[in-house]
Amino acid sequence: MIRLFVPHPLAPGHAVPLDADQTHYVRGVMRREVGDEVLLFNGRDGEWRSEIIEAGKRACVLAPREQVRPQASGPDLDLVVALVKRARLETIVEKAAELGARRVRPMISRHTNADHTRIDRLRAIAIEAAEQTGRLDVPEVADPMKLDRLLDGWDADRALIFCDEAGDARPMIEVLTAPLTQAAVLIGPEGGFSPEERERLRALPFVIPVTLGPRILRADTAAISALTLVQAAIGDWR
Amino acid sequence: MIRLFVPHPLAPGHAVPLDADQTHYVRGVMRREVGDEVLLFNGRDGEWRSEIIEAGKRACVLAPREQVRPQASGPDLDLVVALVKRARLETIVEKAAELGARRVRPMISRHTNADHTRIDRLRAIAIEAAEQTGRLDVPEVADPMKLDRLLDGWDADRALIFCDEAGDARPMIEVLTAPLTQAAVLIGPEGGFSPEERERLRALPFVIPVTLGPRILRADTAAISALTLVQAAIGDWR
Repeated sequence: MIRLFVPHPLAPGHAVPLDADQTHYVRGVMRREVGDEVLLFNGRDGEWRSEIIEAGKRACVLAPREQVRPQASGPDLDLVVALVKRARLETIVEKAAELGARRVRPMISRHTNADHTRIDRLRAIAIEAAEQTGRLDVPEVADPMKLDRLLDGWDADRALIFCDEAGDARPMIEVLTAPLTQAAVLIGPEGGFSPEERERLRALPFVIPVTLGPRILRADTAAISALTLVQAAIGDWR
Repeated sequence: MIRLFVPHPLAPGHAVPLDADQTHYVRGVMRREVGDEVLLFNGRDGEWRSEIIEAGKRACVLAPREQVRPQASGPDLDLVVALVKRARLETIVEKAAELGARRVRPMISRHTNADHTRIDRLRAIAIEAAEQTGRLDVPEVADPMKLDRLLDGWDADRALIFCDEAGDARPMIEVLTAPLTQAAVLIGPEGGFSPEERERLRALPFVIPVTLGPRILRADTAAISALTLVQAAIGDWR
């Protein structure tokens, strides 16, 4: 069944208009008509079986009929990731949504070589991936921030799992044994972190350095592998 | 340093010619000259620091000088993956190389909707990913085979880790506790396995059903997550 994210409240009696892209998808691509059903979620009110009550070429309106799942969210897990090249960053956002990250925080470090990105495009990808993967919330995509500023303002209650390719760090699966209330995974740019950045990271009390095996991983692979291991070890994959 | 796979023997005294693409990369893109060094590997003789001894526009010849790493390979781990859409299949092959799979075996099942693929292109991607990730062998990419035929000829000594999205399977991290000498990960098409296929798979003695968490994963995500968990739990990430 079609599954769509909407910003509107979901409750009986609230008519929910779709936006232009969603209308095109539901009507033009999927050929749904008045009376057909669609699943809606908004990140607050759970998932609703909803009926199409108006279906024009330019407008489509739904009526929420029944809540089929109450609102829920996965572990409080962020992904802090260097601005890598556009295609890989888009993959990373899609995968972060599938793997249950709550936030994606693009980061600029010394060796980051992508100096611009379209955050609105990343946010659209996050919504689409959330729709497809069946989650009830959409991961937030934050505005890019410099690594130093991000660390200056870090909440020390959130463990920062630092995927350190240069070091003698321990395997994630050995390190992550006790549950973490709040965590974040940190993935550097393809050029890695600078010696100064590594030194600062490893000296911070909330940073947990881990290794992701003996081979060099691209940033997208590292992000997916690290989020997988956190979910499998201490997240909602158990 | 540039790192290239070559089919030729690597030993002192053996001149190694690069092919046209490699010559273009080394000369035209990376601007290397006679006397510069490149790392070579061939999947048999380890990794060799090699010197450029001839550098024309159309031909480039290297002389292996010193073995810097002896031949080694990771766990005997295969990825059996449904023929999914071209871009995702290419991603999967790249990631299988990074994550240390020894073979990628494309598979055709009931709900497989991609009916053709360029295996030669996948093999080129496997080589390029092996060069970048630093491994000393290149994962083999087999010709596509129907699932039934593949299971008919399966070596029962190789565990087949079946990522079963429909079922009540246990988390991979709980299931994989003892080392496996030979293993394979099985990833179905985006439409999943048919009920008959699932039934057959779950009845086979070498099949280990596992779950990859509560969300729906795309085939590329599932492949990367599953290979990650095998390497982390019982492979060379420990």
